[in-house]
This record gives sequence, C-alpha cells and structure tokens, in this order.
Amino acid sequence: MEETEMPLLKDIQEAYQRIRPFVHRTPLMSSSYLNSVFGAELYFKCENFQKVGAFKFRGATNAIMMLSEDEKSKGVITHSSGNHAAALSLAAKQAGIRAYIVMPSTAPEVKKVAVAGYGAVISYCEPTLAARISTAQKIIDKTGATFIHPYDNFNVICGQGTASLEMMEDVAKLEIVVCPVGGGGLLSGTATAVKGLNANVKVFAAEPLGADDASRSFHSGELVREHNPETIADGLLTTLSERTFGIIQDKVDDIITVDEDTIVKGMKLIWERMKIIVEPSSATVLGAIIKYPELFSGRKVGVILSGGNVDLRNLPF
Amino acid sequence: MEETEMPLLKDIQEAYQRIRPFVHRTPLMSSSYLNSVFGAELYFKCENFQKVGAFKFRGATNAIMMLSEDEKSKGVITHSSGNHAAALSLAAKQAGIRAYIVMPSTAPEVKKVAVAGYGAVISYCEPTLAARISTAQKIIDKTGATFIHPYDNFNVICGQGTASLEMMEDVAKLEIVVCPVGGGGLLSGTATAVKGLNANVKVFAAEPLGADDASRSFHSGELVREHNPETIADGLLTTLSERTFGIIQDKVDDIITVDEDTIVKGMKLIWERMKIIVEPSSATVLGAIIKYPELFSGRKVGVILSGGNVDLRNLPF
Repeated sequence: MEETEMPLLKDIQEAYQRIRPFVHRTPLMSSSYLNSVFGAELYFKCENFQKVGAFKFRGATNAIMMLSEDEKSKGVITHSSGNHAAALSLAAKQAGIRAYIVMPSTAPEVKKVAVAGYGAVISYCEPTLAARISTAQKIIDKTGATFIHPYDNFNVICGQGTASLEMMEDVAKLEIVVCPVGGGGLLSGTATAVKGLNANVKVFAAEPLGADDASRSFHSGELVREHNPETIADGLLTTLSERTFGIIQDKVDDIITVDEDTIVKGMKLIWERMKIIVEPSSATVLGAIIKYPELFSGRKVGVILSGGNVDLRNLPF
Repeated sequence: MEETEMPLLKDIQEAYQRIRPFVHRTPLMSSSYLNSVFGAELYFKCENFQKVGAFKFRGATNAIMMLSEDEKSKGVITHSSGNHAAALSLAAKQAGIRAYIVMPSTAPEVKKVAVAGYGAVISYCEPTLAARISTAQKIIDKTGATFIHPYDNFNVICGQGTASLEMMEDVAKLEIVVCPVGGGGLLSGTATAVKGLNANVKVFAAEPLGADDASRSFHSGELVREHNPETIADGLLTTLSERTFGIIQDKVDDIITVDEDTIVKGMKLIWERMKIIVEPSSATVLGAIIKYPELFSGRKVGVILSGGNVDLRNLPF
C-alpha cells in the first residue's frame, strides 16, 4: 500500500493534476527593497493567498480526493492547531462531505472562527497531544470518519509539494529553496518536488529556535519526539514523524534555527515592505535569511510563505 | 498653457506611455469570500503594491518627467502628509534630481523614515496648511525648486489616472469604479480615465465622514475650503482645489461618506480575508460598499486600494 512509501516527484505531479482545479495558483512576489538589502534575488511563493490562507489546503484537498466513496460517506477528522483544520473543513465542504475537527481550546480566535465558518463539527480539547488523540479516537469510534493527519500522510505530503511545482515553473534557475518546518509535511513535499525537478537546487528549512526538534533530529540522526516548544510561530509546534524525518534526512540540505526576535523582525519586514500579511511561521524563512545572509547572497532563492492567518488583536509589533 | 486645463483621456494615455517603464503594473486581486458577502464581483486594484506603497508614485513620476532640464537642475519641492512626499522623493532620486520635502511633524513615523530613506531633504513644520506653505515658500525662494502640488497639478492628475487604465484593461465590462477622495487628484484622474474609456461606467468616490468636505462641495455645488478633519484616514485630510472640484463635478456620479467604525471594519476585512496591508484611506472604499451594499449588489466593481503605508505599532484593531 502506497501509504507507507516515500512520495516521488511523479506522485506530486499527479496530485497537482488532481487538485489544480480546486486550489489557487498563488503568485510569486518580489521586493526590490529586500533584494537590495540581502544582495539576493528573493522570490516569495505567496501561500498566504491560498484558500483558507495557507498551503494546507493543497494537502487536505488531495487527501480527500483520494478517499473511496465509502470513506467519503463517513467523513474526515483531524486534530490541528489551526490551518490544517480550516483546510480540511473547506476541502470537505467543497467535496460535499462532513469534517470533524478536534482543536485545542487555546487556538487563535481567528482560526476557530474560520473553521466554524466552513461548517465543520468542532470539538475542543486541552492543548496536549494526548488530549487531541483521545478526543479524536472517540469520534472515530462513533462515526467511522477517516483520520487525515496534518502531515504524517502520503497524500497530504504530495499535496503540499505542489506549491513548489508552481514556483519552479514560474521562475527559472532557482538555486536555493527555503521552507519552514514544523511536522515536516510541507518540507517533505517541497524537498521531494524541488530535488526531483533539479537535484542541484539546495533545500534549506527554517525552524524556530524555541521549537528546534527537527533541527536536533536532523543533526543528531535520531528522531526527537518529545519537546516543549515555546515560539510565536504557532504553526510550527509539532514534531516530525518517522515518515517526514526519513524524507528530510534524505533530501534536505540543512535546517536553520531562528530566534524569536529575528522571526518578528522578518515578519515586520514582510508586512512593511511587501504589504502582505504573513503569520510568524512564514516569517521564520525570512528570519533564516536575516540570520545567515552569506548563505543567500548573490543567489536566486525561492522562499515559501506558508500562510497568513494571524490574530490582528494580538500582534508582536 | 496646458497646466490650467482639465486633462483628457489622451493625456492620461500619454502619461502612461511615459511612466510605464518606471512604475509597477500592480495586480488586480479578488476574494471569493468578499464576493459572496456582498453578492458582487469586486476587483481590487492593489496600488498598495505600487512603489513607495501608494498610487502617488505614478503622478510624481509623470510630473517630474514633464519638467524642463533647467527645472530639473533646481530640484522639486512639496508639502505632504506622507505618501506624495515619499513618491516625489523616490521619483526625484530615480531621475537624479533633488527633492525638498516639507512635512508636518505629526506625520506617521513610517512615512518620515521612508522619505528620509529616499534621500530627500526634509524640513519639518507645524501641522497646519499655513505653516506648510510658508516653509515651502522659503525653500523655493532660496533654491528655485519647482513646487509639485500633491493633487492640484495637471501632470500629477494624469499620472494618478493611469492606475485605472491598467484596471480597465485587466477586467472587461466593469460597471462601477470606487475610489477614495482627499484632495481629489486620484479621483480626478480615475474619473477622467474611466469615463473616457466608457461613459456608462459609474464612478463613485468614498470619503471619511470625518473629512467630508468633498461630499459637501459636491452636493452643494460650492467648494468647501475650510474644515477640521478628524479621521483615521490620514491620506484623505485635504480639501479639493478648484481644478479637482471642477473635474469631479463634471465626471463623478456620487460621493459616499463613511464613518470611522466602518472604515476600520473595511480595513480589518481586507487584512483578514485578502491578507494584504492597506491603509485606512484605502479601506474607506470597502467601507462605502459595506455601508451601501445595494448599490453594488450584482455588479462588477473596480475598487481602487490607494496605498498600504501604516504604522504597525499603532493599529486600530
């Protein structure tokens, strides 16, 4: 069964053919100011303009389209800190099936409102992984809904990789791609797509220093499963799975950690200079460039801005 | 001399040929969420992505390109609450000439920093029109610089109108265009371009209720010159000139006033749903749609988002 395998470029290309009528082809933006500051050519892939305001809609749509009719009739379920929940809810709504969402009670208000707006059935739980899993299991037992993991899922990873297919098509001769890492779904799809298209392109991940499990796993070779993340980048709190760790070890060139001040500095630069709204998780990638400009100087760099869902009443400026 | 005449469509088209190598062709964005809320097809012309973050760069560039070599050698000067100052500064820098900027000491910090960054010579004054004029006059007497008025200037108006040329090219069969009004430069250029291309398209202006001089002038037929504006929309504090009032009387269908709460509501909707940063002056146009949805329901509407320069430390949310 394909589910336990690592995705190949062709799987991502097939996913793209499947989902492209339903997702936005997001624009690639650039800023002459930022290019001159960093002495690099930066191309920002604006997944903050994706449906639900995040790349997660790609993976959720692909995962739902791969379900059997019987599975669809019973609905889908997930637990998520936010963007995956919104994505699965809207993708389910568009497919005419039911979505059950288990959310931590601490999730940002704007994300709760979005999920409710897409018509999903929400169950709130304590903000621990154990509480999420047990709450979800009860619902699965009752409804037979299919669990769609936010990142440890073959079809989700393939969907997330489609953003990079578009980016590589839109700009020729990229030399580096930078992508945020939380659970590793976006990073796995990105690395598979980018390296599949051109093995010479470097793939760097950016991770908050306050949630640096992926960096520690990557550099030690042993999967870190327990950590106490503390970062403003609320989309990057999760740890890698065996599957995403394997893909990342195989395909990613390095993981760069970014402190909180630099994440906020990156966010402010993007907001002020590009006039677009990105969430802290996305700003982490510009943070990596701020911290190690010498890695990017003189290079043509694809920068994946993963999402734009922030609580405007609670900004770090 | 052309300067005292009203611009025609051909003047705006000529301005566009002149400035197009130097300005961004800004994107037209839409939001399926906002379209479903208002039951309309809204196309947002994103001048917040223009150089210096506002449409003002178009008019300033055109005005500078129309100067004689002798005039250029003595530089340009203006007084402005912000965006025109930044625009003139960058346009002057790009033309290799000097810009003198008289700014009220109360201007938003982000705008002061921008102007200084473009290398202009800044003189601060009290935040009154009288103080601006006398400070500017002293500099003119000393340097011979050419005064480029923020809106009461034929070539500036022609430049501002070019945003609508692009918009009318990008989307066929617009039925309504909505544009903010302060001093009336953007509105004059917009109405001239839109009505020149298709006299059947309605042109509405949106104005803060707290700075409703244009609405009072328009509806009474007498130019209001004195007022005490009080609004968050800091780009719309100025009053019309004889010239812009004449064009607006001739070409604009109506001016809609918008209260402060509705301006902020519009701003929040654009930020949260479109993931782009607009300043309150721009949000006034969505405010007009929020206030009178029946005017726009079922229509294809071009909405001009004039700029995106806000002080992130001082937001109204």
